[in-house]
Amino acid sequence: MPKQVDHQERRETIARALWRVVEQRGTTHLTLREVAREAGISLGQLQHYFGSRAELLGFATDLAGEQSALRVGRALAGLGERPHPRAVLRAMLVELLPLHVDSRTTSRMSAAYVLEALHDEEVRERARGALSRGRAMVEQVVRQASADGLIAADRDPVVETDLLLALTGFTTLLELGVVEPAAALTAVDRHLDRLFEVAGRSAGEAEGGSSGR
Amino acid sequence: MPKQVDHQERRETIARALWRVVEQRGTTHLTLREVAREAGISLGQLQHYFGSRAELLGFATDLAGEQSALRVGRALAGLGERPHPRAVLRAMLVELLPLHVDSRTTSRMSAAYVLEALHDEEVRERARGALSRGRAMVEQVVRQASADGLIAADRDPVVETDLLLALTGFTTLLELGVVEPAAALTAVDRHLDRLFEVAGRSAGEAEGGSSGR
Repeated sequence: MPKQVDHQERRETIARALWRVVEQRGTTHLTLREVAREAGISLGQLQHYFGSRAELLGFATDLAGEQSALRVGRALAGLGERPHPRAVLRAMLVELLPLHVDSRTTSRMSAAYVLEALHDEEVRERARGALSRGRAMVEQVVRQASADGLIAADRDPVVETDLLLALTGFTTLLELGVVEPAAALTAVDRHLDRLFEVAGRSAGEAEGGSSGR
Repeated sequence: MPKQVDHQERRETIARALWRVVEQRGTTHLTLREVAREAGISLGQLQHYFGSRAELLGFATDLAGEQSALRVGRALAGLGERPHPRAVLRAMLVELLPLHVDSRTTSRMSAAYVLEALHDEEVRERARGALSRGRAMVEQVVRQASADGLIAADRDPVVETDLLLALTGFTTLLELGVVEPAAALTAVDRHLDRLFEVAGRSAGEAEGGSSGR
């Protein structure tokens, strides 16, 4: 058992070294040698834990995803016992955008991983699986809110889920400074306000699922 | 003059070789040597035209952007003399998404360029400039449509422009096959329908800029 734990710990230490390299110098020229140097180990030692660049990148991206899920979990816990689905979706979306240092690292890791995925079937399946699970979580929240009458019945949950996930398109706009963080958050809030617009109508209308529009 | 033309032509030939490398093998391991091989010239010859990887990537991305603008121009020309702003915005957005081979190459080039931009100030300024100009074009269409009463007066053109550009977030969902092209187009259309919702009301309401909502 302790050996297993050590192995996992060592892998996480290396993954965190990879994150630092990505944050400081980007992913374009990322090599195992560079990550080994950052982790303070030899290339041979690193290769004992990760057989290839793709394997390390996959592990580091998964770990970043787990950390990201933990941050969303903490944000949701802060919303009280039964948070409003609008707040849940907002917490998820905000975490996906590069608005603070941790989510920015995750976002950059993901971007590098997606580019790698385009030309590596195994990486692709892994990236696709992670994104599909994320999409399914968002869709579940949308469907429940729809069933609870918080989202208008004429809104297709699939389309609404896709539009919510597409808001991650703010990533590039933020990274290049074309849109400021405050403007991105305003736009996300406007989008969410409209999605939950039914809540502004009378309860009878909302429950009836039709407002004659 | 002919020498100048030759120089530009040769640079474009090399840029197209880069596109092919990006399309076939991705950007992660992209080297000048590989591009030279694809272009059928020596590394030394290539370096006569491009001093660095960043310079070549910048030129190739700009060229891809110009081709992309030409495709949008052709699409708009096909819409008749005074196309509806909804159709203009749709043509722009569709071109930004990886829905056919040309726009996919442009999209992948841009993704690689953005990652490079994060750690190279010159590349960053160039990428930022290109994206800012694209954003300004979209905002101009939105503002004109708003002034013409085709978009409700209570919609902030800045927020609406940002939300339209954020729809490029479909790129990753499409590239990984998490969302199908038809679903992405449906979502884009739904978003545009809502943006131009005022058109469904009476002209008096639209011109008044308020419908009591």
